[in-house]
Amino acid sequence: MIVVGELINASRKKIGEALSAQDADYIKEVAAAQHNAGAAFIDVNAGIFVEEEPEYIKWLVENVQEVVDGPCSIDSPSPVAIEAALSAHKGTPMINSISLEKDRYDALLPIVAGTDFKVVALCMSDEGMPETVEDRLTIADKLVNALVQNNVDIDNIYVDPLVQPISTNKDFGTGFLDSIEQIVKRFKGVHTMCGLSNISFGLPNRKFLNQLFGVMAISKGLDGLIINPLDTRMMANIVAAEALAGKDDYCMNYLKAFREGLFEN
Amino acid sequence: MIVVGELINASRKKIGEALSAQDADYIKEVAAAQHNAGAAFIDVNAGIFVEEEPEYIKWLVENVQEVVDGPCSIDSPSPVAIEAALSAHKGTPMINSISLEKDRYDALLPIVAGTDFKVVALCMSDEGMPETVEDRLTIADKLVNALVQNNVDIDNIYVDPLVQPISTNKDFGTGFLDSIEQIVKRFKGVHTMCGLSNISFGLPNRKFLNQLFGVMAISKGLDGLIINPLDTRMMANIVAAEALAGKDDYCMNYLKAFREGLFEN
Repeated sequence: MIVVGELINASRKKIGEALSAQDADYIKEVAAAQHNAGAAFIDVNAGIFVEEEPEYIKWLVENVQEVVDGPCSIDSPSPVAIEAALSAHKGTPMINSISLEKDRYDALLPIVAGTDFKVVALCMSDEGMPETVEDRLTIADKLVNALVQNNVDIDNIYVDPLVQPISTNKDFGTGFLDSIEQIVKRFKGVHTMCGLSNISFGLPNRKFLNQLFGVMAISKGLDGLIINPLDTRMMANIVAAEALAGKDDYCMNYLKAFREGLFEN
Repeated sequence: MIVVGELINASRKKIGEALSAQDADYIKEVAAAQHNAGAAFIDVNAGIFVEEEPEYIKWLVENVQEVVDGPCSIDSPSPVAIEAALSAHKGTPMINSISLEKDRYDALLPIVAGTDFKVVALCMSDEGMPETVEDRLTIADKLVNALVQNNVDIDNIYVDPLVQPISTNKDFGTGFLDSIEQIVKRFKGVHTMCGLSNISFGLPNRKFLNQLFGVMAISKGLDGLIINPLDTRMMANIVAAEALAGKDDYCMNYLKAFREGLFEN
């Protein structure tokens, strides 16, 4: 499981304020905490600042990597912002995300073509949000093929089938889960990735639903999550779910997490 | 989801003692508590008492049904004990369980043939515990066909593919989950049922693993569980998992459980 730490997103009030005030200490603190909690990538998003986005996302990358010996997930649809972030980034970043929306696709494909970047391929097109498994597979098929033809290794592609709220349609949960299963089967070697919080939109007790939906998705083959790694219950669920799903030899990670106290919260 | 309350089992120390002492009050208390917590069937098992089993299981049925307006799950491989329990039982019981082990099969098939009893069909044969999905499907196929040919409605059959510990083999979890998926697909209208605790045998923090494995199984189509219904976290997981798995129209059960405080524990 690859965990992407989602907290450094300017749409979160304290991160937005830290960006405006150029409060590097706060950014570093949130970055280090996520890294220590097990995030393999630290997501950086400055999208609410239209004009300053390139400058701000680059500043985020610099400050994150001052305290974290690891890569960022560069979270923007803007090629200018991504290039600015890349100019400062050390190591191999994740690009979050390309989609089949024409503008975004045309802008991002040249950036990732022929690189060893990790790429999130979001199952979204100009026709809007996909609803059925077939919708998602059609988009995934086009994106995966385009990326592979542009010399992105399939092992670096993370398909995100896009979680949608069960409060809107009770079959949106199973639609997503079946998509994960089909994508993993159809595109050998590809990875999958998602955020979880949309599943519980409009319902009470959201964290609990998000955590359990993550467990279900892992049992279908999901191997990437964009989450808050400081949510220890979520992290505990991930470790347990991977053991239950046959992805933890001799339950070694599970036993290690137990010894470290992860299940005590 | 049909929940079978597992607590009235003589192999649990306090139940064994209550049976020996004929302490009806304690049995009634445990029965009522499970019923109030949402158990649709109250399992009764007096299997550790070899000679007294028929008398004791009948006594359990009588006492349970004095306080619970609902059926029992009669948990025994012994035709004599089952007949004794049936002689006292009001309503439509569950028989837990027939299997493909020859003695058990020959003894139990005549008891359930032509009835409207619910029947748990355990994927076990004289060749021992099944390990692969194929092993389980072969046994399930024989059991389901035999029951249907003996006039048991498929809607009354609960196939139990038999959970085995991931500490023994890391693929035992996925083997079980895939079996649930296949059984639900192959035998239209059949139900599935299992206990969960074997999954975590040999590992620490067992309740947590059992709870999450239940969530995974529900996402594969499981619709019956033999559990401790007083485990509120387990019950909360079941309600949430059914909403996430598209089995809760307008999330009504989920919202009702939320209002009733189920998620506060």
